[in-house]
Amino acid sequence: MAKEGPETTEETEHMIEKNGAKEPESVVCAADSKEMRAVLLTGFGGLNKLKVTKKPMPEPQEGEVKIRVKACGLNFLDLMVRQGNIDNPPKTPLVPGFECSGIVEAMGENTTGFEIGDRVMAFVNYNAWAEVVCTPLDWVYKIPDEMTFPEAAAFCMNFVAAYMMLFEVANLREGMSVLVHSAGGGVGQAVAQLCSTIPNVTVFGTASTFKHEAIRHSVTHLFDRNVDYVAEVRKISPDGVDIVLDCLCGENTGKGLGLLKPLGAYILYGSSNMVTGETKSFFSFAKSWWQVEKVNPIKLYEENKVMAGFSLLNLLFKQGGCSQVKSAVQKLLSLYSEKKIRPLVDSLWALEEVKEAMQRIHDRGNIGKLILDVEKSPTPLMASDSTETSEAGEEEEEHEGDNDNKERMPFIQ
Amino acid sequence: MAKEGPETTEETEHMIEKNGAKEPESVVCAADSKEMRAVLLTGFGGLNKLKVTKKPMPEPQEGEVKIRVKACGLNFLDLMVRQGNIDNPPKTPLVPGFECSGIVEAMGENTTGFEIGDRVMAFVNYNAWAEVVCTPLDWVYKIPDEMTFPEAAAFCMNFVAAYMMLFEVANLREGMSVLVHSAGGGVGQAVAQLCSTIPNVTVFGTASTFKHEAIRHSVTHLFDRNVDYVAEVRKISPDGVDIVLDCLCGENTGKGLGLLKPLGAYILYGSSNMVTGETKSFFSFAKSWWQVEKVNPIKLYEENKVMAGFSLLNLLFKQGGCSQVKSAVQKLLSLYSEKKIRPLVDSLWALEEVKEAMQRIHDRGNIGKLILDVEKSPTPLMASDSTETSEAGEEEEEHEGDNDNKERMPFIQ
Repeated sequence: MAKEGPETTEETEHMIEKNGAKEPESVVCAADSKEMRAVLLTGFGGLNKLKVTKKPMPEPQEGEVKIRVKACGLNFLDLMVRQGNIDNPPKTPLVPGFECSGIVEAMGENTTGFEIGDRVMAFVNYNAWAEVVCTPLDWVYKIPDEMTFPEAAAFCMNFVAAYMMLFEVANLREGMSVLVHSAGGGVGQAVAQLCSTIPNVTVFGTASTFKHEAIRHSVTHLFDRNVDYVAEVRKISPDGVDIVLDCLCGENTGKGLGLLKPLGAYILYGSSNMVTGETKSFFSFAKSWWQVEKVNPIKLYEENKVMAGFSLLNLLFKQGGCSQVKSAVQKLLSLYSEKKIRPLVDSLWALEEVKEAMQRIHDRGNIGKLILDVEKSPTPLMASDSTETSEAGEEEEEHEGDNDNKERMPFIQ
Repeated sequence: MAKEGPETTEETEHMIEKNGAKEPESVVCAADSKEMRAVLLTGFGGLNKLKVTKKPMPEPQEGEVKIRVKACGLNFLDLMVRQGNIDNPPKTPLVPGFECSGIVEAMGENTTGFEIGDRVMAFVNYNAWAEVVCTPLDWVYKIPDEMTFPEAAAFCMNFVAAYMMLFEVANLREGMSVLVHSAGGGVGQAVAQLCSTIPNVTVFGTASTFKHEAIRHSVTHLFDRNVDYVAEVRKISPDGVDIVLDCLCGENTGKGLGLLKPLGAYILYGSSNMVTGETKSFFSFAKSWWQVEKVNPIKLYEENKVMAGFSLLNLLFKQGGCSQVKSAVQKLLSLYSEKKIRPLVDSLWALEEVKEAMQRIHDRGNIGKLILDVEKSPTPLMASDSTETSEAGEEEEEHEGDNDNKERMPFIQ
């Protein structure tokens, strides 16, 4: 079974302290290299499309920061990318990954705001799962001394998404109620923690029952992910809830809208129902859904309801929302410094273990965030197929809902 | 032409002071009466369906407050009611009107919170256009001494709707931009004033050109209601706006959503495009619109947008939102006391002049709110058909856009 957050992060801090002491030498040494290790997605498909390889060392362009990566966040979205199940997927081969933490190693020309050696976290438009990344200045944020690199890699995507949905798209205030699916995941835990910063907020969450003990302290009412959560919420709150955050979509859009109180907001922020283990299923799924789930503004008018969508990556990478995101990051870092929020790290994985990590998030085995720890060596406990890219690829359908192979997972001990 | 707000309200205050001095006698006298005057809608249709008649004096039930009415608000919605162009219209004959101000004259059994003689404003689920109304305690609010009765009758519907849309459905903050249609109307003026309470908010407004001079101080950028406002807004703000408030619907929904910045909110709060001067046009219109304007949540997700509907009357009368509304009223009364907002009264009309008042709002001649002043006598300037309900009924199509008969309008001099 997965380790609980506190144990994990204590161990994490310990590792970072060790690493921190070694930093000056390793940076100099690495900076001389013309190559770096990275996770490569060779084509869209199963796990067998992933491998660790050498890539040319990137150099920062004007306005970019070069970061020596310490840790990378792994999100459900990365599974969708692997399968090509996103709108306008980029060409392969590519290096996946949208967020990382590390140390500033160089700056592009005419680029100011950071010093070499600064500890930072960053969004990256792909390429995060590597030893070194270059990313625009506007997507890089300094991190507090007390924040570990794995925490920082678990921070950006989940907490910014949760913050902007709760406080900018919706308008969370005292006494309100929030329904969040996948309450044990990275966003779910960020939502629960942010709700606890506002007085008297009730959080309804769905999660696999085996996670309930670990996350019960953070969620007011927990339901198993397979129960009829609409009925369960109505039993407790006949009037419904003020905010529904939905990462599942499909049939849940109608359910979510139906559960809203007057003036309530339904926010669709993802589509993890669409990951089925098959490639290219997204568009056929979306096409049928497109026809059944459109919503009429008159209905919203009559019922006094809000329907919203939130895509942090589109906001950052396509819509120029970096100043809005930066402002959210600053507020979140204040909450972190006040010890009101803290990323929950599920487990750390070597780059070579990315397939096992992906399998774990696919199986919904995680409680909190999965992190790729760039300096970690593959765990000796791993099965033989874990350090080489071989035949492991298309096994995930069989693994779905199958927890028998949990002992292969290299959790931090 | 219509008088500007300040002159109107000065005159109004003068009238109220006179009335206030006479109050004790007139209340006692009226309380003995078994009848009262009221505007009656005899059937759905044109102006000829309206008449002033005697009705039995209502008495408060448990939980109700009996109010001696001084002034009533006239809203675009009242035209839709007259035509039967609303969902599930009530049976006729009925007394129209959803808001009024006046003096508490009695309370139902076990009803506390007000004293006889309290100056109040109230929402009423029909029946407001009468000398006396009874309405539930929860929909009645005390008004400040300095607020006149016409101001109070102009306050509830427009300012509560504007406030809840800007601050509860959307999330208006410093530096944002707002587009409001009918900027010269009651809601438009409330929106503009509330925006001015937040630093650095840009207001884009559409209104008939003849109103621009009168409302220019309250709106940053004004466009004629017939121009291509999407193009005009884009010229000034290529990125679009943060909040679009749409009382027009139809083709404007797509335009409004298209104009939003990322994280922006489109709010549909009415449907005045649907008033065409013909009866029963609503459903055929709505039916075709239903098919063309539905919005897919995936589109909102990809574009980071919010689509919302707001119906204050549904919130109050069907959805039990009285505590939310009361909270908004309290905040608005604070802003009024701080002199940050003030209802703009377009003109006062006797009950017998209701047809001319409706014609004026239909012709979009008003700047601010039209008020029925219960104690006002019909203006001698009125044409002969104005004090009797006769053949005036179906004239409005001809009047549309025709300002030649403005001299018949009994504005306060």
